[in-house]
Amino acid sequence: MEVSNQHLPFELTKEYIEKIQSAILEENHDLIKAEMEELYSADITSILYELSGEEAHYVVSLLDTKVTAEILSDLDSDERKKLLKNFSSAEIAEYINILDSDDAVDIINEQPVKIREEVIALLKDREQARFIIDLMHYDEDCAGGLMQKELVKINVKQTVTECVEEIRRQAEDVEKVYSVYVVDDDGILLGTVSLKKIILAKRGSKISDVYEPDIVSVQTYMKGEEVADIMQKYDLEAIPVVNIQGRLLGRITIDDVVDFIKEQAIVDVQAMTGISEDVEEDDSVWKLVRSRLPWLLIGMGGSLLGAEFIQFFDKDIALYPILAAFIPIVGSTGGNAGIQSSSLMVQSLADKSGLSISFSERLVKTFKVALMNGILSSGLVFLINLLVGNELKICTIVSLSLVSVILLASFMGTVTPIFLSKTKINPAVASGPFITTANDLVGYGVYFYIAHILKNMF
Amino acid sequence: MEVSNQHLPFELTKEYIEKIQSAILEENHDLIKAEMEELYSADITSILYELSGEEAHYVVSLLDTKVTAEILSDLDSDERKKLLKNFSSAEIAEYINILDSDDAVDIINEQPVKIREEVIALLKDREQARFIIDLMHYDEDCAGGLMQKELVKINVKQTVTECVEEIRRQAEDVEKVYSVYVVDDDGILLGTVSLKKIILAKRGSKISDVYEPDIVSVQTYMKGEEVADIMQKYDLEAIPVVNIQGRLLGRITIDDVVDFIKEQAIVDVQAMTGISEDVEEDDSVWKLVRSRLPWLLIGMGGSLLGAEFIQFFDKDIALYPILAAFIPIVGSTGGNAGIQSSSLMVQSLADKSGLSISFSERLVKTFKVALMNGILSSGLVFLINLLVGNELKICTIVSLSLVSVILLASFMGTVTPIFLSKTKINPAVASGPFITTANDLVGYGVYFYIAHILKNMF
Repeated sequence: MEVSNQHLPFELTKEYIEKIQSAILEENHDLIKAEMEELYSADITSILYELSGEEAHYVVSLLDTKVTAEILSDLDSDERKKLLKNFSSAEIAEYINILDSDDAVDIINEQPVKIREEVIALLKDREQARFIIDLMHYDEDCAGGLMQKELVKINVKQTVTECVEEIRRQAEDVEKVYSVYVVDDDGILLGTVSLKKIILAKRGSKISDVYEPDIVSVQTYMKGEEVADIMQKYDLEAIPVVNIQGRLLGRITIDDVVDFIKEQAIVDVQAMTGISEDVEEDDSVWKLVRSRLPWLLIGMGGSLLGAEFIQFFDKDIALYPILAAFIPIVGSTGGNAGIQSSSLMVQSLADKSGLSISFSERLVKTFKVALMNGILSSGLVFLINLLVGNELKICTIVSLSLVSVILLASFMGTVTPIFLSKTKINPAVASGPFITTANDLVGYGVYFYIAHILKNMF
Repeated sequence: MEVSNQHLPFELTKEYIEKIQSAILEENHDLIKAEMEELYSADITSILYELSGEEAHYVVSLLDTKVTAEILSDLDSDERKKLLKNFSSAEIAEYINILDSDDAVDIINEQPVKIREEVIALLKDREQARFIIDLMHYDEDCAGGLMQKELVKINVKQTVTECVEEIRRQAEDVEKVYSVYVVDDDGILLGTVSLKKIILAKRGSKISDVYEPDIVSVQTYMKGEEVADIMQKYDLEAIPVVNIQGRLLGRITIDDVVDFIKEQAIVDVQAMTGISEDVEEDDSVWKLVRSRLPWLLIGMGGSLLGAEFIQFFDKDIALYPILAAFIPIVGSTGGNAGIQSSSLMVQSLADKSGLSISFSERLVKTFKVALMNGILSSGLVFLINLLVGNELKICTIVSLSLVSVILLASFMGTVTPIFLSKTKINPAVASGPFITTANDLVGYGVYFYIAHILKNMF
């Protein structure tokens, strides 16, 4: 039997990009059109990322309005802003007209105020304009900012036959229908009917007899992370959004939440590793420099303070140069123990599914784990140092410092994210160079203080 | 108007847990049953996490088989294994019987071989047994391991009316139906029909007239990450899985992929921050100690090597104790620059949507960014050191070392993840304590080497 690959995902190759680029150079409309017709909009999007601004504009100008609209909702914010600079407000309005309201709002909010106003005024679909104005005032990271207004709803007093008619009427506007939302006369959400149930129900049945009243909804102010957790917990492909009275306002579909989860993961990792802007490898050299420099400088500033501090002890060092040799172990152990604690705490703070334990329980547990780790590891270091032939005094100073540093760094790694989570700062930052540098400094302080005291004791 | 919260997600409180625990103590069946009937299975799952093993078993023994089965698929692997130790193979078989095949296989694969064989032999639903045996040999991280066999399929020669009958026939087995898969006589996947289309189509229409042939599928061997990327790219709530001939074998639903994405993100962050087992804050003290100790020891081992190395220069240090003061800045800058590069590279390697740039292009870009960062930051440090009143010689040694260290650490941070991605090791490990320690050591080497050479030069 022949190997079929007709349904396998499109794979972008360098050769393909070169083919498209030379077709653009030759202004070969027909070839480009023919090629793009073979592809899904998401594939065209990935091609656009590889083209220059003018090339991308040329390709997009050859596409259907509908395909372009889909591409616009796929593109990331930077690329989209660049691309849309080539279009008039009237053209943008045409795309906005056919997009889902959540994507439409994201795009409009990126535009300068003047264009924003023009586009909304130029929208032919006045319902869409109303949707957008409704959604514009929500913060983009909360349920209100993630929801779309497009959904199929039906009054609980109606019948399955009327419901099918409603689906038919809205089929154009609502691309993905998973279930129909059931509301009362005041628009209060009562439940849902799945499409499966509608297919299997007798046409004349009353909605009130077939709908599922046990459903989960979220309110507009809920954070994106909470929405993601809830949808994941209950395995939902869409969740209705209601206001405080329980009125149905919109729905959030799983595809937007998946994007959100992925973005959050990237932001967290970047925060932890000291990258201060949302960058990608293919950003400009200057943007990459700019995103890294702040943390490098903060780290250096901290270490320069440390250098001033260590100089207080230069007489001790001149006397015992071997003290210098153990500066790194103290610094890096503090850094490592701190980052381990803070990353676990960040994860724990993000995971709301369990019951949160109390602050004091946390501290006690942190203390136990740190003490065990400290004793085990510094004990080993003590033995190794003795075996290598270092003075007992030095071995004692180093291992005592290590235990203290692990205790202190674990404490700071646990407390800092809790503190940050109560502010507007992403707690993941606490696992970054900032806390690592702070822990390094604490380490040096403890080490030289212990050394200074113990050096004359035996 | 009254504030409605009937559809808001259940919130677990300490008081609630205490109420359930005292009901268990009093063996108050009725109260527990009544409380649990009010809740979704996912909520009961979150309660079980807060109970002891015996308490959890007691609660579960009061529940419906169907609810228990759902809870089993929700629980994480550790808790599930603990809970299932209390059940006989016959009881486990009853739950497995009604679970989706993907969840059933996950649970069976966790059991000891003997129980595994018994459970499969005891399954009443022989189709389910066949499904499970089919799925058991796939790796759990590939498409075959993520898919479930439950789906509704229809021959392309049939009609919409027959399709509705098929949905009715399978309604029990297939919980979530998004669309019906269309196959030919050989079972080769041809396309899909969405439920919306089935509702809107005339009942007598031929499937061949209404189905959508442009669909994306994946093959069994594809990695979970790739499946997640594809589903996200094309905004799919389910994706069909085919074999190399294009035969329809199963489907993967978005809820399983969302779990997968989240788990991956946690594994990556833990790898980056030096936690070697998948732990959570509420794990035992000993497990937490064990998960952290390896990286702490590796870091210490590296630093002890560094200590030996720095001792080569103890004469230089005794002469210029101020050299010791700048050990931290060199070490931490190397660590920070390295972790920035590697985390960006890990992100870039994970993001397959763009065309990957060549190895040499990457290195050139890394070099440019590192050189700019190095010159800017070490220039600033040079000025500060001069202003603070340090000797010109020391200022020069420190800043020259910083530039070199940033270049070297960026290079290692870029190359290590690329190298690891070609092995079986998670490239995120490259952003962890291992590479940080390695970069620290490189830093000290460069620093003392430069100091040793320059100390007599001016």
